[in-house]
Amino acid sequence: MWPRLRRAAAAQSSLSRRWMSSSSARSPPEATITALKELLGDRFTTAGSIREHHGRDESYHAVAPPDAVAFVQSTEEVSQVLKICSASSTPVIPFGAGSSLEGHISATEGGVSLDLTGLNAILHVEPENMSCRVQAGVTREQLNTDLRATGLFFPVDPGANATLGGMVSTNASGTTTVRYGNMKTNVLGLTAVLPDGRVIKTGSKARKSSAGYDLTRLLIGSEGTLAVVTEAELRLYGIPEAEKTMVCSFPTIKEAVDTCTAVMQMGIPVARMELMDEAAVEAINKYSKLNNPLYPSLIIEHHGSENEIEEQSAIVQDIASEYNAQGMELATSAEERKKLWSGRHSAWWATIGQMPGSRALSTDVCVPISKLSDVIVETQEDLRESGLFGTIVGHVGDGNFHVMIPFFSEDEKLMKNVRDFSNRLVLRALAAEGTCTGEHGIGNGKMDYLQLEHGDSVDVMRSIKQAIDPLNIMNPGKIFYGSNGGVPH
Amino acid sequence: MWPRLRRAAAAQSSLSRRWMSSSSARSPPEATITALKELLGDRFTTAGSIREHHGRDESYHAVAPPDAVAFVQSTEEVSQVLKICSASSTPVIPFGAGSSLEGHISATEGGVSLDLTGLNAILHVEPENMSCRVQAGVTREQLNTDLRATGLFFPVDPGANATLGGMVSTNASGTTTVRYGNMKTNVLGLTAVLPDGRVIKTGSKARKSSAGYDLTRLLIGSEGTLAVVTEAELRLYGIPEAEKTMVCSFPTIKEAVDTCTAVMQMGIPVARMELMDEAAVEAINKYSKLNNPLYPSLIIEHHGSENEIEEQSAIVQDIASEYNAQGMELATSAEERKKLWSGRHSAWWATIGQMPGSRALSTDVCVPISKLSDVIVETQEDLRESGLFGTIVGHVGDGNFHVMIPFFSEDEKLMKNVRDFSNRLVLRALAAEGTCTGEHGIGNGKMDYLQLEHGDSVDVMRSIKQAIDPLNIMNPGKIFYGSNGGVPH
Repeated sequence: MWPRLRRAAAAQSSLSRRWMSSSSARSPPEATITALKELLGDRFTTAGSIREHHGRDESYHAVAPPDAVAFVQSTEEVSQVLKICSASSTPVIPFGAGSSLEGHISATEGGVSLDLTGLNAILHVEPENMSCRVQAGVTREQLNTDLRATGLFFPVDPGANATLGGMVSTNASGTTTVRYGNMKTNVLGLTAVLPDGRVIKTGSKARKSSAGYDLTRLLIGSEGTLAVVTEAELRLYGIPEAEKTMVCSFPTIKEAVDTCTAVMQMGIPVARMELMDEAAVEAINKYSKLNNPLYPSLIIEHHGSENEIEEQSAIVQDIASEYNAQGMELATSAEERKKLWSGRHSAWWATIGQMPGSRALSTDVCVPISKLSDVIVETQEDLRESGLFGTIVGHVGDGNFHVMIPFFSEDEKLMKNVRDFSNRLVLRALAAEGTCTGEHGIGNGKMDYLQLEHGDSVDVMRSIKQAIDPLNIMNPGKIFYGSNGGVPH
Repeated sequence: MWPRLRRAAAAQSSLSRRWMSSSSARSPPEATITALKELLGDRFTTAGSIREHHGRDESYHAVAPPDAVAFVQSTEEVSQVLKICSASSTPVIPFGAGSSLEGHISATEGGVSLDLTGLNAILHVEPENMSCRVQAGVTREQLNTDLRATGLFFPVDPGANATLGGMVSTNASGTTTVRYGNMKTNVLGLTAVLPDGRVIKTGSKARKSSAGYDLTRLLIGSEGTLAVVTEAELRLYGIPEAEKTMVCSFPTIKEAVDTCTAVMQMGIPVARMELMDEAAVEAINKYSKLNNPLYPSLIIEHHGSENEIEEQSAIVQDIASEYNAQGMELATSAEERKKLWSGRHSAWWATIGQMPGSRALSTDVCVPISKLSDVIVETQEDLRESGLFGTIVGHVGDGNFHVMIPFFSEDEKLMKNVRDFSNRLVLRALAAEGTCTGEHGIGNGKMDYLQLEHGDSVDVMRSIKQAIDPLNIMNPGKIFYGSNGGVPH
């Protein structure tokens, strides 16, 4: 059924090679540097510290700093920068909050980091259309703070305070996706600059359209490899009248996941449905000095009217009880709910806290919900057998879960162990007919897996890349291998 | 703001020219006919009556019959047909239920109609993953009949009993889209055959993915111009425990639309929210011998638990009352609800029934919800001023509405009047930052409008078409002008 998995060994060995990536090859020539300086003045720099900053993200990859950084402030400036860079085939690497988990901001082949944080205007909010238009550098939290007075909010929440442009690029999602969808569901249209500097507008302010190829959703998740997104028209939702949160634990992961499956099959509306395994609970206990029982836990949240959330929660409590849920805690006030969520929100830091001074890898597979409990259980066994410490948190309603594994990059034996584990996890997810990434993207870490997952479809993706970015200046070395014709480095 | 609209005059005149389209140019050579006969035997035919049947849809366009029809029964056969046809650059036109409203099945340049109705197997249903996989020729009603025992259903409902392959091709939606989304929301992955015969699989069984370019959503809405879709993995939903339907009328369209906007802003879940204008109500009254008050009407439906639908309906009734709703009728039983829906469901035939022996045009603009009532009111005035009879029905929650205008194609004066009206309507929708098609697609009727709506983006679409289908054998003359380099015929 999965003959492509035979190529797993090859994939794994090139994964090892990539771990130590290095910058190279396509640095901007002097004329390009001069032209960019002329265009942007002080807002163009080759200063070491700023290049370093733009060569850092939250991923486990060794990313490469760019040759220079351009701080742009408008779509027109982005267009000018791309015209200049395309004239010398200089790579352009879009940069937002730097919260990528897959090395998206790495100047793998050298080039110019395009810092979009100066495009930070909320261009319009139209409560009557329940939509708004933002520039790419606006962050998620900035937008929702600004929206508060309107009674509306933008629901996609990847955890990090990412920029909306970055969230478009990776097709971000998160805890609320089970109810409100991901970026593909919630972006109505984009303004984007093509590699040659042409500015295009995709989509419209209408909720839906069947007018031509869906360039909006082609650009969402394209990780800056086709165009630079400079504006997005977003769908907004009414802030719910009431919210109710339940936390409980289960004897086994299977019972926790089965609870979620039953809830979804019955069509009970849930706004969030998050799983933490026993290791995550233990790490959070230590980190936050709590004493929660060391069992797999669920957090389930409902949004709606007072009556709706009570009724929905009651049914979910019944279902959970059937699957032997214990220690149910419930809250409706903002303060109490925040307390129930605090464990989940600190899971990343609690995990890293178990190995002070470490960094961490976050895996990102997403599998059919019917396979979720098996895949998680096998993954826990694999962790145990390989002697690794890792915690699991999951967006169960989507089948997406993360194993967070702290590491010290100088410990070569540990690193090999982590990489091997991560490789087995992806192969397990693909064997279950899932995907190697639910929300973080391919970046420069999962290119082999893209091939394993999509086979000949990747050729079609490549031909689209070639048609839109023939010089391969848009974030080269992400999604596909770089300018050397697709041969692994 | 809309400088492109200046090209409207040009658009309109080429619209007139296209009205009388004719087949031509790229008929399959003898060797191609022979090879296809060898492959398919009796299932390949050049018989006149069958060609005629495959040159007919439900659109107002004069569509052209193909040179031959190939009845395929598997993805492998589709692949073989495409290999044979690409060898001689013979156009291939996918054919499903023939329910297109925009001339999609027309053999504009000659070629082979690829009848996919033989691919009619439901390949698997996975209740635990709330998904199923169907072949492209399975119809919507066939699927939902088959699913009944599982307690699940597929929600996208374009009205016609279209094939799922056809629904993928046009990005179909309909009355339930306000709650469950359109095809882009509800397709997890596809099997498709590229013009050169390669078979690709896009997506997976996972609910979401950020792995590479979204070929699934690129193919959805591509109207058969990139590849032949042969299978689709679909999201399913639990059949709701209870449903409640309300019908009422309003003094003005504005009050009806304002009711809907208020409902959406408050986040009250609705499963359907349909508008009929006073002309539609009158046509339905005559057609079905009813006596409903001649005012704009809404039908609003809720899906959920018994309590939820009662509470939601009560709030909606309050809101509607504030906007002067009259004559509210409510129903929860299947039989009673069916009665309330019968008017809406017969609107198309009731409209045509006003001019016995006529055919009808259905427009398809979709605008921001904030502009919907203005656009509809202006459209009604335009109808009156132009002396045309037409009825309006709309999916108000999405901002999508249809004007249905009966016509006799031999009445040239009437035809010009209808075309001019349709043209003004599209321009009005574009000026309101909407789209020329919410769910029917571009086909061969709206190519000029695609250009008006998307400007330079269309060049990007074209370069994707060129990259994937360099010989332009996939349904040529749809979305873009045909093989003559994009010059209007």
